[in-house]
Amino acid sequence: MPFKENFNNANVIIIGASQGIGLGFVKQLIQDIRINKIYATYRQEETAQELLELTDEYPDKLTSLQMDITDELQIITVVKNISTQINKLHLVINCVGLLHEGDLQPEKSLKHINPENLLRYFQINSIGAVLLAKHLLPLFRHQEPSVFASISAKVGSIGDNQLGGWYGYRASKAALNMLMRTTAIEYGRSCPQTLVVTLHPGTTDTRLSRPFQRSVPPEKLFSVERTVSQLLTVIEKLEPGDNGQFFSWDGSKLPW
Amino acid sequence: MPFKENFNNANVIIIGASQGIGLGFVKQLIQDIRINKIYATYRQEETAQELLELTDEYPDKLTSLQMDITDELQIITVVKNISTQINKLHLVINCVGLLHEGDLQPEKSLKHINPENLLRYFQINSIGAVLLAKHLLPLFRHQEPSVFASISAKVGSIGDNQLGGWYGYRASKAALNMLMRTTAIEYGRSCPQTLVVTLHPGTTDTRLSRPFQRSVPPEKLFSVERTVSQLLTVIEKLEPGDNGQFFSWDGSKLPW
Repeated sequence: MPFKENFNNANVIIIGASQGIGLGFVKQLIQDIRINKIYATYRQEETAQELLELTDEYPDKLTSLQMDITDELQIITVVKNISTQINKLHLVINCVGLLHEGDLQPEKSLKHINPENLLRYFQINSIGAVLLAKHLLPLFRHQEPSVFASISAKVGSIGDNQLGGWYGYRASKAALNMLMRTTAIEYGRSCPQTLVVTLHPGTTDTRLSRPFQRSVPPEKLFSVERTVSQLLTVIEKLEPGDNGQFFSWDGSKLPW
Repeated sequence: MPFKENFNNANVIIIGASQGIGLGFVKQLIQDIRINKIYATYRQEETAQELLELTDEYPDKLTSLQMDITDELQIITVVKNISTQINKLHLVINCVGLLHEGDLQPEKSLKHINPENLLRYFQINSIGAVLLAKHLLPLFRHQEPSVFASISAKVGSIGDNQLGGWYGYRASKAALNMLMRTTAIEYGRSCPQTLVVTLHPGTTDTRLSRPFQRSVPPEKLFSVERTVSQLLTVIEKLEPGDNGQFFSWDGSKLPW
């Protein structure tokens, strides 16, 4: 039975919902009458204005919570808070991702390798997701089909790497893929109705991809709305055998 | 032309040579009359006694150098030192790897996930190798066939992961595989006669595997000598098309 059949009355968490694809998911799901509750997390209030306005507009359906996924205590606090309101979670989408930030820029070659930057990539792009998986597991202990999805990237496919460069981003997404596949195996034992997957959104017109959009042909640069629709279609079509897999925006499986 | 044809008069660096597989490589290569110079690095003097005794015994062929691969300045200093003595490198084998260390133990399940431990796994098992690749590149700028090999692990194969657990070790080895594949692409442009590969040694009777050997059938637990011979055979048979690949001890290719 695809996940779609149980999308009704679903409780959702979107992590990294202040901007980009995460905010896009909130906007689309808030209009979806099948969804019961949406919890949206953001790191910085200053960049979360649009999300906070939406929360004022839909106070019964949408709750926004501040949370930095590099701080385990903040994750614990937010999960505790959510657990006082709901006892079942049906869809988690982790949209947190770092490609560039001030002096931290994707490495064009080995000479740009900086160990501090590499640690930061792993901390945000890899470790955050498995901390979420650790603390959200109890909310998936129920009998209804559910999905735990993380936004990964095709450049995180080791087998698909032909161009090189972007060492830290690539390695942190490969690590994310491994952590989520390992999580899928554990969830498969602890809450077997939950599917754990990683998703490649395609190049999407967000702050993350902006400095690198020049080399992308216009038809391959998706609007946030389009990416969100495409990924929701992939999620809704997931079947039990898809646990632990890595999907592209068109529903095809990607190599590791 | 396989690498074997140019093993004569080779200059070698073994990183993480104080114990286990690294020390085994030093012992075997020191008896190999084809090898010119061996540079062996170790982190802690206290656990490097056997290596330091070997160095006293073969002062013309073997040089030991203290280096912590988590400290880029130490790598720079050691490479500078080596560069005053040789200007061509033919074989680098990075044997540094962390599986357990005091309270840091491979995670049996999500509840054991600890972000500090995950960062430490990435720092030692993933980032160290790419820092070496960054600073050793100039010594590979010559026309003779060469190899840059890193010890990885089959449990770092995402596609092969069926059992789960060992989150940090698995993810750090997947990240290592990605970093080395990305390095292979860059080396392919900058020093195309150098092949960059990752190697799975099989379970070897070392301090690293000791706490986990109970579940390994005796015929699958290799002595250090056997592992070293098997991996040297794999290395000697490498051909140009093998750049950027992940090999098992028997020479078969592993999935990512």
